[in-house]
Amino acid sequence: MNQNVTALLKEMTLEEKAGMCSGLDFWHLKGVERLGIPSIMVTDGPHGLRKQDTSADHLGLFDSVPATCFPSAAGMASSWNRSLIEKVGAALGEECQAEQVGVLLGPGANIKRSPLCGRNFEYFSEDPYLSSEMAASHIQGVQSQGVGTSLKHFAVNNQEHRRMSVDAIVDERTLREIYLASFEEAVKRAQPWTVMSSYNKVNGEYVAEGKRLLNDILKEEWGFEGFVVSDWGAVNERADGLAAGLELEMPASHGAGEKKVIEAIQNGTLSEEALDRAVERILGIIFKVVAHQKENAAYDKETHHLLARETARESMVLLKNEAILPLSRSQKVAVIGEFAQKPRYQGGGSSHIKPTKLENIFDEIAKEADAAYARGYDVSSDETDEALIEEATRAAREADAAVLFVGLPDRYESEGYDRKHLRLPANHISLIEAVSSVQKNVVVVLSNGAPVEMPWLDQTAAVLEGYLGGQALGGAIADVLFGVVSPSGKLAETFPHKLEHNPSHLNFPGEGDKVEYKEGIFVGYRYYDTKRIEPLFPFGFGLSYTTFAYSDLKVDKKELTDQDSVNVTVNIKNTGSVAGHEIVQLYVRDQESTVIRPEKELKGFDKVYLEPGEETAVTFTLSKRAFAYFNTELADWHVETGTFTIFIGASSADLRLEETIQVMSTVPVVKQVHRNTTVGDIKHHPLAKAFIKKATEGSPFSLPEEGAEENDMMAAMVNYLPLRALIAFNPGGVDEAEMNRFIDELNTSLKKDALIQS
Amino acid sequence: MNQNVTALLKEMTLEEKAGMCSGLDFWHLKGVERLGIPSIMVTDGPHGLRKQDTSADHLGLFDSVPATCFPSAAGMASSWNRSLIEKVGAALGEECQAEQVGVLLGPGANIKRSPLCGRNFEYFSEDPYLSSEMAASHIQGVQSQGVGTSLKHFAVNNQEHRRMSVDAIVDERTLREIYLASFEEAVKRAQPWTVMSSYNKVNGEYVAEGKRLLNDILKEEWGFEGFVVSDWGAVNERADGLAAGLELEMPASHGAGEKKVIEAIQNGTLSEEALDRAVERILGIIFKVVAHQKENAAYDKETHHLLARETARESMVLLKNEAILPLSRSQKVAVIGEFAQKPRYQGGGSSHIKPTKLENIFDEIAKEADAAYARGYDVSSDETDEALIEEATRAAREADAAVLFVGLPDRYESEGYDRKHLRLPANHISLIEAVSSVQKNVVVVLSNGAPVEMPWLDQTAAVLEGYLGGQALGGAIADVLFGVVSPSGKLAETFPHKLEHNPSHLNFPGEGDKVEYKEGIFVGYRYYDTKRIEPLFPFGFGLSYTTFAYSDLKVDKKELTDQDSVNVTVNIKNTGSVAGHEIVQLYVRDQESTVIRPEKELKGFDKVYLEPGEETAVTFTLSKRAFAYFNTELADWHVETGTFTIFIGASSADLRLEETIQVMSTVPVVKQVHRNTTVGDIKHHPLAKAFIKKATEGSPFSLPEEGAEENDMMAAMVNYLPLRALIAFNPGGVDEAEMNRFIDELNTSLKKDALIQS
Repeated sequence: MNQNVTALLKEMTLEEKAGMCSGLDFWHLKGVERLGIPSIMVTDGPHGLRKQDTSADHLGLFDSVPATCFPSAAGMASSWNRSLIEKVGAALGEECQAEQVGVLLGPGANIKRSPLCGRNFEYFSEDPYLSSEMAASHIQGVQSQGVGTSLKHFAVNNQEHRRMSVDAIVDERTLREIYLASFEEAVKRAQPWTVMSSYNKVNGEYVAEGKRLLNDILKEEWGFEGFVVSDWGAVNERADGLAAGLELEMPASHGAGEKKVIEAIQNGTLSEEALDRAVERILGIIFKVVAHQKENAAYDKETHHLLARETARESMVLLKNEAILPLSRSQKVAVIGEFAQKPRYQGGGSSHIKPTKLENIFDEIAKEADAAYARGYDVSSDETDEALIEEATRAAREADAAVLFVGLPDRYESEGYDRKHLRLPANHISLIEAVSSVQKNVVVVLSNGAPVEMPWLDQTAAVLEGYLGGQALGGAIADVLFGVVSPSGKLAETFPHKLEHNPSHLNFPGEGDKVEYKEGIFVGYRYYDTKRIEPLFPFGFGLSYTTFAYSDLKVDKKELTDQDSVNVTVNIKNTGSVAGHEIVQLYVRDQESTVIRPEKELKGFDKVYLEPGEETAVTFTLSKRAFAYFNTELADWHVETGTFTIFIGASSADLRLEETIQVMSTVPVVKQVHRNTTVGDIKHHPLAKAFIKKATEGSPFSLPEEGAEENDMMAAMVNYLPLRALIAFNPGGVDEAEMNRFIDELNTSLKKDALIQS
Repeated sequence: MNQNVTALLKEMTLEEKAGMCSGLDFWHLKGVERLGIPSIMVTDGPHGLRKQDTSADHLGLFDSVPATCFPSAAGMASSWNRSLIEKVGAALGEECQAEQVGVLLGPGANIKRSPLCGRNFEYFSEDPYLSSEMAASHIQGVQSQGVGTSLKHFAVNNQEHRRMSVDAIVDERTLREIYLASFEEAVKRAQPWTVMSSYNKVNGEYVAEGKRLLNDILKEEWGFEGFVVSDWGAVNERADGLAAGLELEMPASHGAGEKKVIEAIQNGTLSEEALDRAVERILGIIFKVVAHQKENAAYDKETHHLLARETARESMVLLKNEAILPLSRSQKVAVIGEFAQKPRYQGGGSSHIKPTKLENIFDEIAKEADAAYARGYDVSSDETDEALIEEATRAAREADAAVLFVGLPDRYESEGYDRKHLRLPANHISLIEAVSSVQKNVVVVLSNGAPVEMPWLDQTAAVLEGYLGGQALGGAIADVLFGVVSPSGKLAETFPHKLEHNPSHLNFPGEGDKVEYKEGIFVGYRYYDTKRIEPLFPFGFGLSYTTFAYSDLKVDKKELTDQDSVNVTVNIKNTGSVAGHEIVQLYVRDQESTVIRPEKELKGFDKVYLEPGEETAVTFTLSKRAFAYFNTELADWHVETGTFTIFIGASSADLRLEETIQVMSTVPVVKQVHRNTTVGDIKHHPLAKAFIKKATEGSPFSLPEEGAEENDMMAAMVNYLPLRALIAFNPGGVDEAEMNRFIDELNTSLKKDALIQS
């Protein structure tokens, strides 16, 4: 193929090459008929296929062909189930093949910095490891069917507010450890055929024009082999983008983009080689799509619908259960809330698809038990309707239990804008309050793409977070409510008590076109943990109908270098009476560090299915990255020699077992000594003792004996003294020339030691 | 005098001039005998005079002549009493005159960024307005006696950890609104004769070598007329410091400093004019000191002791009182805790003085009621001593009430190092727990310079925060406990439930030699308010033995410009049965802002004394600064036109009255329009309508009607569209050249409007 591309490139005119770098229309790449280069189609994802008729509007926001609507990413991530996500990806790939779609735009790996972000339902997690793992599985699934993906929105696109003009100011370590890390493993392990660059700026530069992100990091450092496509309308100056590594502009710019590219080449501000490299990458993927196209492909709608139901079951998170769930089939159930008839099952914007069918929640519940319906509220309004409330309380009074379907209506959450608060609509809250005043068995089922505040939590007996469950949510909810399956989802994001507790709160959505990520690496549970702010529900939390015992944590080595890996094994046993999945989480804490680090970070997870009484061993393999932070001086991941604790937990707040290991760095780090290096920083070096002795002799300063009282003012003062001040305070001791000689000698010695060590 | 200085300068040799810029020894400036320039003495403060014998150690940390030990600044600030602080300053000035001291080193106006800072006891507040007011009063008091002050440690010296090498990274707005603001009003209003530059770096540059802070802001912008002296040992490169505006190096550098200055002048890297300007400022102050020196000055030790007692009474803050205080004289009182006999009454380090006398707390209490003493703990240890605990519980059982004296021993708090946690010593905690298990009437009196966590709070009936009360704390505590006076202090800092809740927690004390102030302007209550994190005790909080009613809030105008001022009046009435002081606080909130602002900020306070039933009016005058934020683009304070709420409160969490006013800006701010300006930002401009109409005609994008549904995806998408994307999505509309013409036209119009407005 490569040879073919090279040959083709030679035959292409400048105009044809420049043309290839902008779309043909809203959904197609250009081809070159005379050279046999076909035009391929791309289509929005990520939780279903949104292929529009050619008659559709240019913006592409409206009608599309029917496709299976899977739960959106917020729910899918709550499954923590890599193979399930991969199966969903494969199903999406099959649907693309059936619809002759070459690339499905997704998945989205942006970090949930704030629960307000209008597009959080399309993203996986607040944690980059979990997010990246989910994204990789999705990509592997879709691409297993010979269909490309577009990992998006690369990068630091964590809000909808002013998304096309906002400049995200992020420090390098945070960028690497949180925002890029969420893409990094997905790129390295799953090789998406394309990556979509985001609208926003990062640190002053449009991502779509940023060489560092698009070329240096994504392609050179991570080895990304495909092409970068702009988010729709993200191109500012086309030639600058192309020079930076943005191969494809979408949608069509009707000649404007290619004109700017040609002009830039003609006036020498862009090299033709850069254009060639871009076209080469685009052609590579086009031919890959073509090579994998299946003739007469089709898929079974019912099979995919059942997969959507399986996925929805695992996506839901049981947040509270005071021994009321599962419901008994002999109970009379009041099903309350218009969502039971008009479910909210997906989010708004470019991911909004037309499902092949849609289950009615009430109907699915009515299959299981004697059920009565009350509307409860008007979904199109926030106003409380007293008549509806009265009808609802009547139904609740006459039933054994009331299941309330509440959450966020479409207008609350969408691509394009962010929420301003985390509250449910006022009429949903009044409904909960009214019903709970007449019925103590209240089960709240939430439909929403991101956290809500729950001031009404105490008034409920159970809360099931349903997220946006896709077209088969009705059956899945019934399955969970009546115990056909045990709920097994766990939160991929922290639910705070109050919006204000969120780490980004002081700096979201920013000032004008600038948003500063001042919370740094302290995103999600990293923040709540370290700040000791109790969340409403912690990251990794979710209840089950059964119980699990954790035991026998073992590591296969207690000491290792940053070049080794360590295997961690733990036994999990289903100690309850029903079968169920358990999500086992592994967190790592660096016991001591010269840099600021969170309390702990997720570095492994697995989901296991166990029959009652069944036990299994779960093994995790940890290597350098599990212990490393991004060292900005080395411009690389770095492990500091020291003790690390490995925690095994059922959630980030429910750590069951722990073990410590020693990890040794193999990377020498040489600190330069200078006149403002402090006495405390060098006093343990063999060369330093004589110097310090001479410098302090006859002075009131003296070094404390080893092991002497730490809390001593004199010791602290001496430790924090720069060398230049040490000698200044004692003119009888050492002079500046002698100090400089000592500094040179020490630096030489330190450098030599480092060379020996490495 | 100036003429004299000018003449003298001409007569001085280069060596003499350079010599004047470094100290003679630890506590004296140099003089020039042949020219009649005397050597003056400076001495540590700020809450008492620490004049050392010439026989003292060179570092100057040890013995000094007796002087009145007033409460340290943390306590004094809790009095919120400007005139009291001024009286204390005047007393300090008298003592300086009596001891022939020309400049008293203090006050300290550093902001309490973290409660861990070892030197917080020497600083006033977490709020720059309160801190600056207290500092100004202190300076005015001392200088009223013809003695100079040294406002310190300028600036951003908010930790002891690595204080001589640490680089504080602070954004400009935070620097101006928080850290510099704490000095600014004190400089402008009180004109300290000297300012002391701090050890640390700010944004990469040693303060002692930073022209921007020492010259441009302090002298040129704020009009500081005196000289800048280095903190002792803060000079890195002497010539660089002098060029930047550091006039005086302290202590003596034994010729090294002047040598570097002379060399720099000789090799042309420093101008002799810069040296002349420095010497001129130093001579100005020397002659000012000389001119104000009083012959045979003396002071009355007993009068000053009584002033120390009065100050201590007002410095204490009653944090909790479940109807137990004031104690009755007929009660039998168990006085427990070694602090009752060996009081902790001042902090460690350069401010540590030798008091003229020292009251014993137990003795003072025994004067009021039948009192028994139990030691409770060994003050030199953290270990619980069961025998002492047993003795204490026995004493408590036999009494009607137990008063526990606990807090932080000397080793916990000092100049030189920071605390690592906010806990009391373990043996103090066990004492509280043991005593409260046998006696329900437990009063805890704390001696400490900064907040502690109080997990034991529920086990007490009352808590009196005594801070570091100075030499007369014993009598003052007895006065408050037995109701001789009603407690009247209020917290000048927030007490958090947990250390981790403090805004600086994620970034304190930094990494190596870098500390980033990522919490920005959200220091103290600005953070707890905005983040809705409940503190243990809020800023401005303190109980009294009487009650006060707030009424009749009036403003003398409802609309003003940023050039006007507004008078705010409120009536305060003592509605209880004893006389008492009330501290009335005024906070301002900007209802809406394009920049991120805290919920509210302190902009006024007053302390009034009222007999039972007495009522008085308190008036505040607010002008521009009360409504302004520091606009980094204008490089000036700026008020955004809009609505401001004025709150009158008894604490930051107890707002009693509010009123809104309109403030109009008189400063035109012109926003440049460019290709990435969003549609939403310009759509209301008359020139924009025709352009947007043409650009969107025939496109799926259209502007929503005025007043249409806000939560609409299309509206949001259009509002956030940059102009360049608006035209790119609709090739049939407007082309790039036409867009550029429109942008030019709009910019010209906006500029014209601004000129008309200004």
